[in-house]
Amino acid sequence: MAIREPEIIRNKEQMRNWTRSMRAQGKTIGLVPTMGYLHQGHLSLIAEARKHAQLIVVSIYVNPGQFSANEDLSTYPSDFQGDIEKLQSTPDGVDVVFNPYNLYDYGEERERSGGKKREKDEGVVSCLEDERGGGFGHETWIRVEGLEKGMCGKSRPVFFRGVATVVAKLFNIIEPDVAVFGKKDYQQWRIIQRMVRDLDFAVKVIGCEMIRDKDGLAMSSRNVYLSPQEREQALSISRSLLEAKKGGRNICSELRRSVIESIKAAGGKIDYVEIVDQESLEAINDEEITSGGGGGIVICVAAWFGKVRLIDNMEIDVL
Amino acid sequence: MAIREPEIIRNKEQMRNWTRSMRAQGKTIGLVPTMGYLHQGHLSLIAEARKHAQLIVVSIYVNPGQFSANEDLSTYPSDFQGDIEKLQSTPDGVDVVFNPYNLYDYGEERERSGGKKREKDEGVVSCLEDERGGGFGHETWIRVEGLEKGMCGKSRPVFFRGVATVVAKLFNIIEPDVAVFGKKDYQQWRIIQRMVRDLDFAVKVIGCEMIRDKDGLAMSSRNVYLSPQEREQALSISRSLLEAKKGGRNICSELRRSVIESIKAAGGKIDYVEIVDQESLEAINDEEITSGGGGGIVICVAAWFGKVRLIDNMEIDVL
Repeated sequence: MAIREPEIIRNKEQMRNWTRSMRAQGKTIGLVPTMGYLHQGHLSLIAEARKHAQLIVVSIYVNPGQFSANEDLSTYPSDFQGDIEKLQSTPDGVDVVFNPYNLYDYGEERERSGGKKREKDEGVVSCLEDERGGGFGHETWIRVEGLEKGMCGKSRPVFFRGVATVVAKLFNIIEPDVAVFGKKDYQQWRIIQRMVRDLDFAVKVIGCEMIRDKDGLAMSSRNVYLSPQEREQALSISRSLLEAKKGGRNICSELRRSVIESIKAAGGKIDYVEIVDQESLEAINDEEITSGGGGGIVICVAAWFGKVRLIDNMEIDVL
Repeated sequence: MAIREPEIIRNKEQMRNWTRSMRAQGKTIGLVPTMGYLHQGHLSLIAEARKHAQLIVVSIYVNPGQFSANEDLSTYPSDFQGDIEKLQSTPDGVDVVFNPYNLYDYGEERERSGGKKREKDEGVVSCLEDERGGGFGHETWIRVEGLEKGMCGKSRPVFFRGVATVVAKLFNIIEPDVAVFGKKDYQQWRIIQRMVRDLDFAVKVIGCEMIRDKDGLAMSSRNVYLSPQEREQALSISRSLLEAKKGGRNICSELRRSVIESIKAAGGKIDYVEIVDQESLEAINDEEITSGGGGGIVICVAAWFGKVRLIDNMEIDVL
């Protein structure tokens, strides 16, 4: 298989011009947004995107807007050269890697600001919710007000605001026909779907099944920070979720308790375990399940092993 | 001059298809978003749009998302047939009138929701800030967190959230190259500019000078609700603003006081009178002006005459 070099684009205008010239030739464009440090899970998203679009753009951008000040922005793993090599050896490769330096730098625009003297912003986006944005820096945020509140939104209050906003920016810059997201980040996927519907983006959002390592651990760029012992402990998540799916019991409170207990017993610290409706992400109570209300539920988990926070989930279609 | 019939499109997909087919032919598209009940001010926006784009779309849509429950959504004036006639007699006419029935109706999408039984939403968008959106209805909102807070944002807390969101929807549906907004709605114009920059919309935003009636009153669809006496009183706004501009005095506190006093003396009820930086909309204090900090300021006014709330503003370029 021939190795295909992706074109690397770092500039917004160039990126949009590329899409527009391809679209003018009748091509369709698929986007796979990533924060880099690619693994098999990302490559499966690319393979999925290939089914829906003729040309593939992979964005590699660690978005400061979705990290709180106390989170792991500065230590988020990166290996750009390794990423490019992985992309080259992917079947059919990818067409463009969009790797901007800073998506929140509006330098030129700020120069135009009426001449009133003030210190220049540094193009640094604030991660925290300011009392008042003010000035000339980035201050526009997209909120998906219901879906963003539960689960990861509780422990990471600015996370989904940052994700929705950067995805909207990427959509507006890259103008893809299709964008593929992993269902490992279940809440994120549902939030992006909702945002696209509510804001009428002309993008088809596709959710892609998560990829697990052979031992069952959900693939994540953050797994690299687990010690061998922590990794072994972390398998309690996938094991307990599989158990819940196989068990055939559909009493939410029991399912939830057994997942929590398994993870705790293995040495994990629970952030949350919740059983929710697959689309609205509203908590499901036992009566709804046992009354045959139907539809799908999903068990979502976030837990700490040492300094690493892992998430995982399992969809269960109940009668 | 021949009368040109605009094409009337009420469906999102049809609208986007129209733009895409025109763009494929190399045409550029200009958008003038309106809530209908068109007056000379709107027609001046269309004339401005003609300078920047080959084809013109005028949207006519009274956006429920920007009205609070206690505001005048139900009585907002409308005259669709009259609007079409005005557009027909505009020089060069307009190409499309986009007049959707309900931009927040996602009926099909809700049907797909896993089958969990619950009452259907009616496609009605809530105007108020909910504690938790929940369910399957519209819940994505764009906030321009700094600029939205002052002036009109104080007395109309969900207004700019609704405006930014519907404009983003219109941009995504219509995909214009250029969009024209009136500087009469000064804060709105700056918010849209900022949103476009921060979210990387591929739309050029143009601000267009406001149009006044012969007596000086800023044109507004809401002027129709002024009694002759209220209209006479309301002239105090434009008179006091012109006075401020001509006066050559540049002490903010004095300018502000004189505008407030003139409007009150005429029988108006002040919502706000503020003197702010033209771009950041931050309040300007006297030291900044008199120290020759330079740049432009704008005096913004909102005041009630009877049951009608009017806004107006005046840009002043200080040294």
